[in-house]
Amino acid sequence: MKLRRWFPSLDWGRRYDRAIAAQDGLAALIVTLMLVPQSLAYAMLAGLPPVTGLYASILPLIAYALFGSSRTLAVGPVAVVSLMTAAALDSLFPAGSPGYIGAAMLLAALSGLILAGMALLRLGFIANFLSHPVISGFISASGILIAVGQLKHILGISASGDTLLELLPALVHNLPGVHLTTLAIGTCSLLWLWWARSRLRPLLEHRGVSACLAGNLAKAGPVLAIIASIATVTVFGLEEGGVKVVGTVPRGLLGLALPTLDLDLALQLLPAALLISLVGFVESVSVAQTLAAKRRQRIDPDNELMGLGAGNLAAAFSGGFPVTGGFARSVVNFDAGAQTPMAGVFTAAGIALSVLLFTPLLHNLPQAVLAATIIVAVLSLVDFKSLRHTWRYSRQDGAAQAATMAGVLLIGVEAGILLGVGISLLLFLWRTSRPHMAVVGQLPGSEHFRNVARFEVVESPSVLSLRVDESLYFPNARYLEERVGELVATRPQVRHLVLMCSGVNLIDASALDSLYAIVERLDAAGVQLHLSEVKGPVMDQLRRSDFLERFGGQVFVSQFDALRTLDPAIATRTLQGALQARQ
Amino acid sequence: MKLRRWFPSLDWGRRYDRAIAAQDGLAALIVTLMLVPQSLAYAMLAGLPPVTGLYASILPLIAYALFGSSRTLAVGPVAVVSLMTAAALDSLFPAGSPGYIGAAMLLAALSGLILAGMALLRLGFIANFLSHPVISGFISASGILIAVGQLKHILGISASGDTLLELLPALVHNLPGVHLTTLAIGTCSLLWLWWARSRLRPLLEHRGVSACLAGNLAKAGPVLAIIASIATVTVFGLEEGGVKVVGTVPRGLLGLALPTLDLDLALQLLPAALLISLVGFVESVSVAQTLAAKRRQRIDPDNELMGLGAGNLAAAFSGGFPVTGGFARSVVNFDAGAQTPMAGVFTAAGIALSVLLFTPLLHNLPQAVLAATIIVAVLSLVDFKSLRHTWRYSRQDGAAQAATMAGVLLIGVEAGILLGVGISLLLFLWRTSRPHMAVVGQLPGSEHFRNVARFEVVESPSVLSLRVDESLYFPNARYLEERVGELVATRPQVRHLVLMCSGVNLIDASALDSLYAIVERLDAAGVQLHLSEVKGPVMDQLRRSDFLERFGGQVFVSQFDALRTLDPAIATRTLQGALQARQ
Repeated sequence: MKLRRWFPSLDWGRRYDRAIAAQDGLAALIVTLMLVPQSLAYAMLAGLPPVTGLYASILPLIAYALFGSSRTLAVGPVAVVSLMTAAALDSLFPAGSPGYIGAAMLLAALSGLILAGMALLRLGFIANFLSHPVISGFISASGILIAVGQLKHILGISASGDTLLELLPALVHNLPGVHLTTLAIGTCSLLWLWWARSRLRPLLEHRGVSACLAGNLAKAGPVLAIIASIATVTVFGLEEGGVKVVGTVPRGLLGLALPTLDLDLALQLLPAALLISLVGFVESVSVAQTLAAKRRQRIDPDNELMGLGAGNLAAAFSGGFPVTGGFARSVVNFDAGAQTPMAGVFTAAGIALSVLLFTPLLHNLPQAVLAATIIVAVLSLVDFKSLRHTWRYSRQDGAAQAATMAGVLLIGVEAGILLGVGISLLLFLWRTSRPHMAVVGQLPGSEHFRNVARFEVVESPSVLSLRVDESLYFPNARYLEERVGELVATRPQVRHLVLMCSGVNLIDASALDSLYAIVERLDAAGVQLHLSEVKGPVMDQLRRSDFLERFGGQVFVSQFDALRTLDPAIATRTLQGALQARQ
Repeated sequence: MKLRRWFPSLDWGRRYDRAIAAQDGLAALIVTLMLVPQSLAYAMLAGLPPVTGLYASILPLIAYALFGSSRTLAVGPVAVVSLMTAAALDSLFPAGSPGYIGAAMLLAALSGLILAGMALLRLGFIANFLSHPVISGFISASGILIAVGQLKHILGISASGDTLLELLPALVHNLPGVHLTTLAIGTCSLLWLWWARSRLRPLLEHRGVSACLAGNLAKAGPVLAIIASIATVTVFGLEEGGVKVVGTVPRGLLGLALPTLDLDLALQLLPAALLISLVGFVESVSVAQTLAAKRRQRIDPDNELMGLGAGNLAAAFSGGFPVTGGFARSVVNFDAGAQTPMAGVFTAAGIALSVLLFTPLLHNLPQAVLAATIIVAVLSLVDFKSLRHTWRYSRQDGAAQAATMAGVLLIGVEAGILLGVGISLLLFLWRTSRPHMAVVGQLPGSEHFRNVARFEVVESPSVLSLRVDESLYFPNARYLEERVGELVATRPQVRHLVLMCSGVNLIDASALDSLYAIVERLDAAGVQLHLSEVKGPVMDQLRRSDFLERFGGQVFVSQFDALRTLDPAIATRTLQGALQARQ
């Protein structure tokens, strides 16, 4: 049982047969065609030699297949995580240097340890700090930042920077140095990829190709671009003409490699690793959930954490960099008929074969083609409509989303997401720090109590009844003190205050302290506190303190009970009045 | 009106007369007697020349009197804030150096700007991040840390460090170098102060002195210790014998001084200034509230922020350091009969007079006496009982309090409080990330729906009814997705899912996105989502999105309505069955 808890693969593995293998194999073939160019491109985006993208697409897929609970998630390098990797490393080492490559592996190792640790300690809820508006704003802004950052490869100029404020001036400044052959290759690639993505499939279907085959052929667009561009560069000797190419693959990376084991560096990378882990997990789990639901399958967040953790550890020890479940790739895997994570194992085999066979051929692959692949992929992440919708739905959530976007674009990736999290926490505190509280009075002729501001009710001059419509806990504990202080200060005749707790699901230690303080202050002012309609679990918890003995008041079953006891004249007068009126 | 909003002094100032002035004057006299030794001692605790404590007790009191809303709060240097000041500065400059003094003023200026900014932007709710267990743990641990840190002055040895881990070994290591004369002075002071605090007043009362006079005489204990020790040092020439004394007051500080205006330093000090502001505000406002309630007066948190902000700015521009409202001092002020903040102005005058008359006499004041004053004052802050109570009341709050204490003692003041805040946020997320949700069924023969796990109810095989007992917002949005996915995956017959929203007070943008995702996934699985018993304000907000048009289901007024529409057979069968049974 314990073993099966952490190895969902034991479940599907026992029922694995040739028919399922055939389906998984076909899906793997298509995903491999898609993953080869993507993994090269995202490695370049992460500031690493493109071939590391291939390394990051072998063992991590096998590790995820062993530990992950999603049947169809396709793990590997993804755009946003690659951008975060580059942001974490590029101030520490020159891009592509051995130090940089080792640090990228260390980052993957840290991320793997964090994710696996979160799985074992059941800390997946930490990902809830990243609210949807923050994630959505972060991804849109990352898409823009990535696309702008890749423009230099299309233009054949240099321009570095982590924010739009650095990138745009650098691009404009170096624009006169544009390399025309590179620009031609880049533009052709962009046009072709865009056309293959949006027009090729309908066209093929129109020409009588079956829908399934047409879809798969369209997916091969980036592979065709790579082959064609390598051929062009080789035939016309464009590298000598100044077209930047991938170049010779560093030999040292081909075997299993170890990440830099440096504690100081690890401490320095820890915050980035934490953010990468959380963002990667949130992204991945939402894809996995969507796909699982389509076949009424289940995923388990703890298994997902463990699967991604294992994947990142595998990446760390095979020359890779942080990976996670990719959206587009997983959808393709699902649509192509993948049935089990074995499709991922087959994909890994396909990538390993590509490394063995094609690595030397990659030398002449122009960087502009990879940049075009990235740009076409990430522009689909940019979603301004979502910002408009969020803003219309809730000003607070919209503000958090806008702040995250602005932060990522103008301050940087990590600072932007932290800004977004900070602002959503602040807005949350603000929203819950002033819960709805209503002074209530008795509806004449009934035992019901309603807000005095909305209903014609009878109030006792000496008994103040206050209904609290929210749990009492630290964000609003102080407000409760203030509100009670205000109410009592403006009503000198009051001798009893009854807190009506029908809406209170929790009283935490902060609120308990506030209640003690309220009792003390009321006492000094000659007012006695009482409670009414306290829920069972809240009562149980209060019994674990000495509040009930010390506060000196009573706990009434109902608000009417409280009024009948504390001001019998008023309570029965309104009831009798109603009875007489009816008779 | 606008003016009076920010100057509560305009209110009480108009009705000020000689009788009130007499009461304020008496209170000021007693507070001055108490404040002189405290301000000297807390300045030493902050790593500053003792006389800066006097400077920090003049203009800040007048500034608070103008802007603050509490009638009886006594502002000035306090132990915890002085400790935080030392922690913020002692890694940057040598204690007591001109750079250190200028930086302390800058810290006060930043703190003043932060507090005033929070007042103007109505950001006082940010203080809610500091839950009661965190504040309580922080103050207890600070008391211990301060007391241990002052032992070196009692022993006449040197020992530096910001945590127990540094302080204790340093004390033990230097213990052989103990200076016996200093130790004698320190021990006598400790014993006298402790006796004056706990025994003198009952003794005087017993001897027939009036209770009021006895209390005030007991308050003068520290002043007597100062006078006696200065006399002893002077008469016996103990300074030459190696007893460390306050020494010559630096002349440059006597006039108005400017804080170091250094933007880099300001940025470096900003986090510390923020924490100092928040801790100071929370401490001060809770004292102010307690005292105001005793006379059924009101305080306004925004005015308190402004008053403390003005006080800190005044400290910054008069050679002081961060100040706030002190607990013990305010209680003394209140008990001595202070009626208005004018008592603070009189106190300031008293302190100013002390500076003019007594500064040269302070040269021979032994540091051991100041250290004894601090130790006796702060040990009353240490409260282990509170930790036990909190732990018994709630494991989560207890854990936050223990973590804060351990953090402050072992890692440091700032890190400790941040750890506490982080842990209480994490525990809060954890607690609210899995709200109570219950699958409900129809109580036979009624229109009521109850938890299927607790009641004998009728469930429709095709309609799943899920009651959510919490607002839907970012901490639990993901859980809702998971839970719905699980429920539907295990119930293949289900065709409709009705979310019963009677307990939902809010659906934020994250939860709205989750609802969209749920609709999409349910749709892929052939299940339709519906809502029932949605509250008015939630419905209003949903109308601002296109959810209601797009989700394809219906919004039912009641859960019974939903079942009657979606599975009429079941709904009416149980009702009819009940009717027949009754007939």
